[in-house]
Order: sequence, then C-alpha cells, then structure tokens
Amino acid sequence: MINTFCKMPLWECNDTLVRVAQGQQPADVVIRHANFVSVATREVLPDTDIAISCGRVAFLGIRHHTAEHCIGPDTLVIDARGLFAAPGLMDSHIHVESAMVGVSEYARAVVPHGTTAIFADPHEVANVRGLAGARCMFDDKDSPLKAMMTPPSCVPAVHDVEDAGASIGAADIAEAMRWDDVVGLGEMMNFPGVFAADENLLGEISETLKADRVVTGHLPLGNHSKQLSAYIAAGVTSDHECDTWKDVETELRMGAYVQLRYGSAWLSLPGYLEQLAASGIDTSHCLLCTDDCHPNTLVEEGHMNRVLQKAVELGLDPVVALQMCTINCAQYFGLGREMGSATPGQCADIVLFENLRDFRAKMVLIDGEIVAEDGRSTFDPAPYDWPDWMTDTMNLGFVPTAETFEIPAVANSALGVAIPNGMTCAAALALDSQTGTGTSELPGACEAQTLPNGEACVRAIGISGGETITRDLLVHVPVVDGQLRASHERDILKACVFDRHHGTDGVHSFGFVTGFGIHGAHAQTVSHDAHNLLVIGDNDEDMALAARTLVKCGGGEVSVADGKVLALVELPVCGLMSRGHAHDVASEVARAEDAWRQMGCTMPSPFMTMGLMSLACIPVLRLTNRGYVNCETFEMEPLVVE
Amino acid sequence: MINTFCKMPLWECNDTLVRVAQGQQPADVVIRHANFVSVATREVLPDTDIAISCGRVAFLGIRHHTAEHCIGPDTLVIDARGLFAAPGLMDSHIHVESAMVGVSEYARAVVPHGTTAIFADPHEVANVRGLAGARCMFDDKDSPLKAMMTPPSCVPAVHDVEDAGASIGAADIAEAMRWDDVVGLGEMMNFPGVFAADENLLGEISETLKADRVVTGHLPLGNHSKQLSAYIAAGVTSDHECDTWKDVETELRMGAYVQLRYGSAWLSLPGYLEQLAASGIDTSHCLLCTDDCHPNTLVEEGHMNRVLQKAVELGLDPVVALQMCTINCAQYFGLGREMGSATPGQCADIVLFENLRDFRAKMVLIDGEIVAEDGRSTFDPAPYDWPDWMTDTMNLGFVPTAETFEIPAVANSALGVAIPNGMTCAAALALDSQTGTGTSELPGACEAQTLPNGEACVRAIGISGGETITRDLLVHVPVVDGQLRASHERDILKACVFDRHHGTDGVHSFGFVTGFGIHGAHAQTVSHDAHNLLVIGDNDEDMALAARTLVKCGGGEVSVADGKVLALVELPVCGLMSRGHAHDVASEVARAEDAWRQMGCTMPSPFMTMGLMSLACIPVLRLTNRGYVNCETFEMEPLVVE
Repeated sequence: MINTFCKMPLWECNDTLVRVAQGQQPADVVIRHANFVSVATREVLPDTDIAISCGRVAFLGIRHHTAEHCIGPDTLVIDARGLFAAPGLMDSHIHVESAMVGVSEYARAVVPHGTTAIFADPHEVANVRGLAGARCMFDDKDSPLKAMMTPPSCVPAVHDVEDAGASIGAADIAEAMRWDDVVGLGEMMNFPGVFAADENLLGEISETLKADRVVTGHLPLGNHSKQLSAYIAAGVTSDHECDTWKDVETELRMGAYVQLRYGSAWLSLPGYLEQLAASGIDTSHCLLCTDDCHPNTLVEEGHMNRVLQKAVELGLDPVVALQMCTINCAQYFGLGREMGSATPGQCADIVLFENLRDFRAKMVLIDGEIVAEDGRSTFDPAPYDWPDWMTDTMNLGFVPTAETFEIPAVANSALGVAIPNGMTCAAALALDSQTGTGTSELPGACEAQTLPNGEACVRAIGISGGETITRDLLVHVPVVDGQLRASHERDILKACVFDRHHGTDGVHSFGFVTGFGIHGAHAQTVSHDAHNLLVIGDNDEDMALAARTLVKCGGGEVSVADGKVLALVELPVCGLMSRGHAHDVASEVARAEDAWRQMGCTMPSPFMTMGLMSLACIPVLRLTNRGYVNCETFEMEPLVVE
Repeated sequence: MINTFCKMPLWECNDTLVRVAQGQQPADVVIRHANFVSVATREVLPDTDIAISCGRVAFLGIRHHTAEHCIGPDTLVIDARGLFAAPGLMDSHIHVESAMVGVSEYARAVVPHGTTAIFADPHEVANVRGLAGARCMFDDKDSPLKAMMTPPSCVPAVHDVEDAGASIGAADIAEAMRWDDVVGLGEMMNFPGVFAADENLLGEISETLKADRVVTGHLPLGNHSKQLSAYIAAGVTSDHECDTWKDVETELRMGAYVQLRYGSAWLSLPGYLEQLAASGIDTSHCLLCTDDCHPNTLVEEGHMNRVLQKAVELGLDPVVALQMCTINCAQYFGLGREMGSATPGQCADIVLFENLRDFRAKMVLIDGEIVAEDGRSTFDPAPYDWPDWMTDTMNLGFVPTAETFEIPAVANSALGVAIPNGMTCAAALALDSQTGTGTSELPGACEAQTLPNGEACVRAIGISGGETITRDLLVHVPVVDGQLRASHERDILKACVFDRHHGTDGVHSFGFVTGFGIHGAHAQTVSHDAHNLLVIGDNDEDMALAARTLVKCGGGEVSVADGKVLALVELPVCGLMSRGHAHDVASEVARAEDAWRQMGCTMPSPFMTMGLMSLACIPVLRLTNRGYVNCETFEMEPLVVE
C-alpha cells in the first residue's frame, strides 16, 4: 500500500536518490562503518556505509564500497564504528491507550528505545468516543513516530451485556479505510461472530479487503482446524493470542502471520519461543508485538527492544528476531517496499544498537533525521489540544454518595433475587474451569449447607493475581440492616459498575469480588472494554469518595482508605489517557501501585487485573454496568443465589 | 494489491468459506490425504486435506484434522494419496512472445506443467504495436491461466539508433496502471537511462509507484554499489540478469528481489545456485523465472517444473525452490494475501506433483477447478480473433528483389565510405572484449596489411553460438562489379535490416556477419527489440526470396537455399506469434532448426542468436535498420573501413 509515513514519496525524490547514490549530489546524512543488520538476507554485514537523502536510503555500501563519494560539506557524517545499524523497530499490534498517554507522548517514550513504527488499534478510545475519538487521537501527530492505525473492529466488544460509549460498524470501517494513516482493520476479537458469519463483522472485513488492507486478528483458540480455517478464510490474517507452540505452528501452517507477544502483562513469548527457534520452520510470517505496555514498562524496561532482548534470551537468533519486528512486519502490512529493511529507496528508519543482546539504542533515525540519542528523544511534542468532547467523558448523570453503594438484600430485578437469612444455598459450587480449584479454600466460600443467620449467598468474581481468567464463585456475605455487606476479613469486596457514557442517572450494577484483599476502595475508568466506572471496596464511604474523585478529574484510577485519597492517576482524556508525559504518568502509576500495597493487596498488577473485571469476552464471570455476565454462555447471572 | 484473477473476490464469498470450513455447507472440491507443501512454513505436511469453495481454500486439515465434514453429495473428492499438493507455480518474469503464440495458447502449453500464474512483459508486441498491441494481446483471455501484465517500460529499447514500431512513455504507463491485469512495470532495461535520471524513465517508474505497483528490473551489472544503489533507490526492486553468486548476493543485500533464471537459452541457474543453496542466507527475496521460453522447450521439457527440477538437481531444497515460484513471487507483486500458499482464503491454485524431484504435474487446479491432468489441459481455448492491425505488420513500403541486396562499393553516406581496391586497412583490429580473441582466426579476417585486389575491408558482426555478446570485426570481402559480396568460403554473410513498421519504401541497412556458416539465406521478423525484418545470406537471390516470403505471410522465420524455401514458421501476429497451437509451432520450429543444419549451420539455437543481431542494448556490435551500432558508445559505425 502507499506509504504516507515518509518525508517524501519515492516518486518525488528518486531522481535525487539516483544522483546521490552516484556521488553527483551530496547526501544529507552518511552513516559510516556500521555493522549493518541485513534483514533482507539475514546477515550482519560489517563495515557498511549508508547514505541518506530526502529521508530515504540512497546508497548502501558494503565493506570496501564506501559512501565517501556521497559526502559533501553539509553532510552529517555519523561514525557508527562498533555499532549495529538495523531497520527501525515496529510493533505489529499495540494499544497506545495502555500507556495512558496520547500518540505523541507515546512516541517520546518509545522512540528512544528504537521503535520507529507502531500498528495501533485505538480500541479503548473508540469504546468511549467511537471512530471520531480514534480519529482525534491519531491526529496528535507532533512526533516523528510512524503511528499507523488499525481502526477497531469490535466496538462494543460484546453486544447486549453492557453499555459502551460508542459502536462501530461496517460503514464506519469503510470510511476509516479512506484515511491516510489506516493500514488495516484492528483485531477481530469477536471470533464467535466470525464463526457465525455475522453480517456486520464480515462487512467490516469486506470493507477492509476492498480497500486492499489487512485484517488483524485475535483468536485465543489454538489448534482447532475448522474454526481456525473459518477465521482465516474469512480474511483475518494475523493473530497475537497464541499461548503454545502448537498454536503458533498451526496458525503459521494455515498461512496466518503470528504476532509473538511480550507486553507488560501478556508475556506469551516464553510459552513457545524456544520451540520456535528449534523448529527450523520459516519465520517470515512471525511478527513481534507488545499488545499492551504500561507506562512504567516503557519508561523503566523499554518497548520492542525489551521484546527483542527476551526473544534472544530465549534462544532466538538476534537477526531473525529483528526480522520479526522489521521486514516481516512491513511485509505483512503491505509496506515492505517502503520500510523494514533500510535498503536503497526505503525510508531511512534506522537504529544504531550497541549490541544485539540487550538492544540498547544508541541513536535512532526516522526518515533520515536523528530523533533520539542515548535513550532520550531529540523531539519535544507540544501538548496535544484535546477537544472538550474527548476530555469530558464522565457522564454518570448523578453524583455517587455512600448510599449509592448500598445493596439491599431484597428481591430486585436488577440485582437478582435477595435471599432471606437462614436459607439453604442450593446452587452447586462453581469450579474454576482453568485451575480446577473450588471455592472452599476461600474464607467466605459458600458451600451446600445452611446459611448462618445474617448472611446471604451471593455470586462473586474470584480473581487470582496474574490470571486473566476469573472464577464464578458463590460466597457468604453479611446482611446488615437489610443490606448485603462487604467483608474485609473474608476478602469479599463490593464491586460496582456505573455507565459513564449515557448520563443514565444512576443505572449501575452490583457484585462482589474476592482476591484483592484490600481495606478501602479503588476506582478506575480503565475498565475493558466499555471503560465504565468500576469501583471496588470494603466500605461504602471510601467507594463513594473514590468514585467522586474520578468523576471530578475526568477519570483515571484512585485509591482511597479511611476517607483519604492515597493515590490518584488522572486520565482525563476519555478516562484513559493523561495529558502529561509518559515518564510522569509512570511515576504516578508507581505511587498508585504503592497505594494498593498500603491497602493490603499483594497481587501483581492489581490495576490491570481490575481493568479486566468487566471484560465480557474472557471467561468466566465478569461484572458490567448491567450486572454479572457468564462469559461462556453470554447470559446475565443474578447476584444473589437462592 | 487487489487480485482480479480469481473466481470471486474474498469479500464476496468469505461468508460461504466460513460455513464450508465448519461443515455447515458442502465444499465444491475436497483434496484428501495429500502431502501438503506448506510454503508458508517450509515443510511438507503429510496426510493433509484441503476443502475448496468459490474457487478458494475454505479449510486446511493437517494430519488427523480431516475435511470429511466438508464433503456433500456433490463435492468432488480427489484422492491425492502419495501425491504432493503445492501452490500453483508462478513465473515471475516472462515474455509470452518467445513461445511464438498468444496468451491462451501459451496457457495450453504451460498449465499442464503446473504453471498457474505468469507475470508477463509484452515487450516484443509493444515494439511492434505499442501499448495498444500489449492490451490486445492480453485481452486473449480464453484460458484459466492468471496472465498478469507488466507493461513494457523500454519501447524502443534504445533511442536514435533504429526505428521500432511504437514507443511508450510515462503517460502510457499511467494509463496502463489503471488496467485490472497490470501488476507492475515491465523490466527497466534502460539502466543507463536510470543512472542518468532520464525524465521519461523516472516518470514511468513514478507512475507505477503512484499506482502502488512494483517496478521490475533488468540490470546486467552485478556488484557495482553506486549504480546498483541508484537503480534500486530509483524504485526498481527486482532483477533477472544476475550471472554470478556475487551478483545475486549483492542484489539481495540491497533489498532487491532476484529472479533466478532458467529459460530456453538464458541458463543462469548453474552460475550461482549451488552457492546460494550453501550460503544459508534468507531466500525469501529469491524468485524463479524463465524470461524466454521457446515453444519446443515448453512442449518437450516443461516450464517452471523444468526450472524447479534444475534447481533441485543443483542442490536446492525442493520446498525452498517451490517457495521461490509461489509465495515469494506472490509477495513480491503484492498478491501474497491472495495467492501463493494455498492456505485458507487464498485462491485454490494447486498442483499435485508426483514427487519433488522432476515435478511432474499429475493434476492442476486453478481457482478450484481442474485445468490439467496427466500433462494435458482440460480447457480448449478458442482461436483468438486478432484484429487486422495486429496481423498486418509487414509494412516495408516496397517488394524486395535480388537487386535490393546489392551493396555498392562506393562512397555512400548511408553505408559508410567505400574503399578502392588495394588500399591499406588502417583500422586497428577490434578485439572481442569478452573473450580476448582477435579476428585473425577467421578466414576472411582483415589485418593491418595491404588489401588484395578486388577486396574491401568491412566491419562485420562476429557471432559465436550460445553467446549473446558479439564481436566487432574487420574482414575482407570480395568486390565484384563494384559491389561488396558475401563469401560462403570465408563464412561472411550479407546482413540486411528493413524497417517494416513505417512503409519507408526501401530504407534499410547493410552489414556483414560471420559465424552462421550457411549457404542460402535466412530471414526473420523476430529480431529484438524493434523486430524489423532481418535477412542474412550468401547470395542476393535467396535473400530476396526469404524476405518476400515473410512479407507475404505476415512475418515469422524462413530458410531458403538455391531458390527453394526449406522451412517456414509463419508468425502473422505482429510478425512474432502464430495463430496456432504451441505444439504445432514447436514442430514447425523443429523443422526450421533442421533447415539451418541443412544449410550448414552448426551453432546451437541459430534462430535465437540471429534474433539478437539487432539488439542494440547488448555489446558489442549490432546491425539495426539504420546501420551498425557500437553498443558501448551508442555511436553509428560505417560499414566500409578505410
């Protein structure tokens, strides 16, 4: 496809490149004596010179073919002796919103690590503000990063079980495909819809194919030939959800591109990489991606360089690893003639690495201009002028108070059916289908026995740190003054989800959750995928303060205990992103992590785990603003169990 | 790019494919128990089932994942036990005209060998009838072969030294890029023009790039970094002219796709293939091609299967070899999502081979339909209805007689300066720059000595069988009755080139040629690249008969001796192609080869060698309709030397 991410289209400057290559006109930049990582041939070529003009490579001189003839009085000459010159790194699938900043601030964070292009799915913003929100987010272009968009295909992610801020259909996708920066369709996570040949979903795919762009995938299914064939035959050509070598191998054999993932939390690489490296199969359809990277990962550990480091540590040849985030990625998106190998004619997106082990970037060039040196960007994006409709998204329609969080233990169609004290909890115990562990290990676990007086048997979400799969539990909670109460001793917190998109004046749901172990409350608007306002806590006052704090600041995450705000990360842009720098957000997030600990949570990444509590496309039990959803049957479930 | 070579676009049938894959609707065809050549992963997967619907692969079942669920009462089930199912073969660079038939007859010849797609440059037809001729040729679509066009970039091949039938410029290319079957620009053989940043050539490249298509190359230069960088940076991304491993390696490192060639006469593979196979470098940028295949090669030996056979014989892994003429080729042309791997969603272009050594095709499917079995096509193209302007191209403007071929030994600006008998031949001996052999080994060689009485020193083209490079020779020829004569004893033939495009009433040139060793005359209109009428012979009468015979039949090749036509291959379409079947043309060509032998020629492929006598873009000396051209300086040279 036509590359709109360049200083000049090749057809406007090929005459200049021809002259520069032959020494008839000086180059803008000449890199000398580099170890050139030739991803086209899978080699490292020592002592290579690269001459750059018009943002593109004009001349590549290997060994004794120097670029001396391209150097004029104004040519910037970079001595890369001892360094490794590789094409700029590409993240084949990323949600920028996970870094809690906008695109240009994201660029400030990742470019110094060697990332020159991202293929980003603004799925989160779109759930809040629709396609217009995605467009607005990507109009934040004050950075050299090539931020290519794959507009979200599944907004809302799941139908009829929650209220998202927007929806996207085939007609929207047709419109988005006309945008210059759109390179494909965002992850097709509604795979059941594809299997069912859903008209709107296939319509989105079709609009993408008609625009000659790729449809990216999301298929946590593995080695199921029928469904995998159906999914790929529908037109979806990539997937980042593989967990095992068998998944990877099968999808590659089916012709798909497999996006090997290593993000902040999705650490899939170790699940298959050693086997991949040992298999000897063709890796040209393997890509690397992070999917989601939190600000602190980006600031403290890195971005694609971190993925490369891990891949090499796990036994992958470093040049093969580099192919997976350069030439292979560009090929997949139809940009292989324009970028990905830093060969003549291509955009001069080049990273100078100190070595091919930790991939520390000494210098980064995009379109032939130095954009980062020694870990710091040389560009300074202006703060993006977000329009009000992107920052005014806390639309609950009312102000929550402590009373808002009271759960009456009475029959209530919205809540399910309340249970009088002393009744038998008749429901069979739900077992975690993943781990096989039952509920009985939990302090408040509800067994098939007579309820103690003053207690009720309710459904609760069981959460384990580091797991995305939840458990569907039945637990006992105290009933006081006709209300269901949380229990800090039993680690049973109240959970409440408010529709924040439609000003519906109090329409919200109640549930319980166990696993966080906190005293106090935590609220956040980063709550996949509808990003409604989610509040958990062991007392109504702290929950109310947490909720009000976020309503006031426009969204984000907040920790409250005993009437005091312990930590607040303000994310006023759609309740998802900060207006500040990634570095500052990372510090705030670190403070928020401390607050979790202070409140008693010992789980890794509680914020993230909480952010998935409403995500109705992942098993087993989730709580949306409409109530409990069984994510295997997609039926609503009652809170109180008879 | 959008694939217009399919039964149905994916976006019109993905719903059906989804249902077929899951067994909800029966497939049209199911191939069972094949050894599937997985070019995506570079493996052979035993016992694989493939279900096909709407011309595309709906389901791929590896090992115990059978396609039984896709079989309905009307499904055609093909038992491929013991066979190898590979994606259809693609020829990445081909001139159909070399087979002396039109596109659909070409299909009849090559499809049974497993070829399902060709990327064809109608350069020869375009030199006779321009872009309109190319369009007309490719409108001959009564075959399932995917005949994709790369419109010729260099018509005429060389400017100002000959008169071709047409010319093509950037505006024509812009028009052609809008055609459905155009996938790129034809070989950019005017590389000196690219080095000089010629406006029209770069304009053609630019129009191609703006249309998001590839520019194919032709660069017999090898390891010259400056020019190679310039050529590739200009936008040319492939080359089929490599002769050595060093050439191949350098071009791959520069990011180009290298088209490894093995045609009828251009047998480049042995020059580098063993080294390539041993090198261990990434071969994803290697393609296979034939460039030119004569009808007898296609009929007797095969097409891409023959190239594969040779590649494997030279040590290449058969699956890697298959990648080079399937997935790699599709990728290069931007069609990798649509064809090249026979994975779900792709066009069901599939060959069942008996083995991966000789690559004999047992069955060929295109878009899921059986198009050949056991070496015979199952389709029967209707004779193409060529318009008159394509078959009426012998426009000399007069009828040649024996007198036409008389060369007066007098001063003549068109011929150079005649030399009186007995003069000293003062010119230095021209040496063949390739072989270093001088002229003295030739019977009529002219040395720096006094000319015998009755002789003249003339420039002659020295030809060696199997060599494309000619020699620039000085030889003595008899002068009789004031005319320069040929000499059968000395193997010095007259050569004469007539402009056959402009009816210029007798504008033609004279020269001499040595190497063919015939008595009689041979004429042909296949004479690269202008395809004027070229006649050689040792006597004027036979030359005249040969010329008149071709004028009468519309072009082709003819051998005449002692007033008798020994063999005639009629090629009335542009003087290049027959109206008949490739098999019949092959027989006629075989008879013509016999005639050459009968006339005394011992050279291999004399027709082909003669066909290059006018090709002014290959060193050293050529004869066009305007006279001798020094193909290193591009200066005209006189016939008679003082």
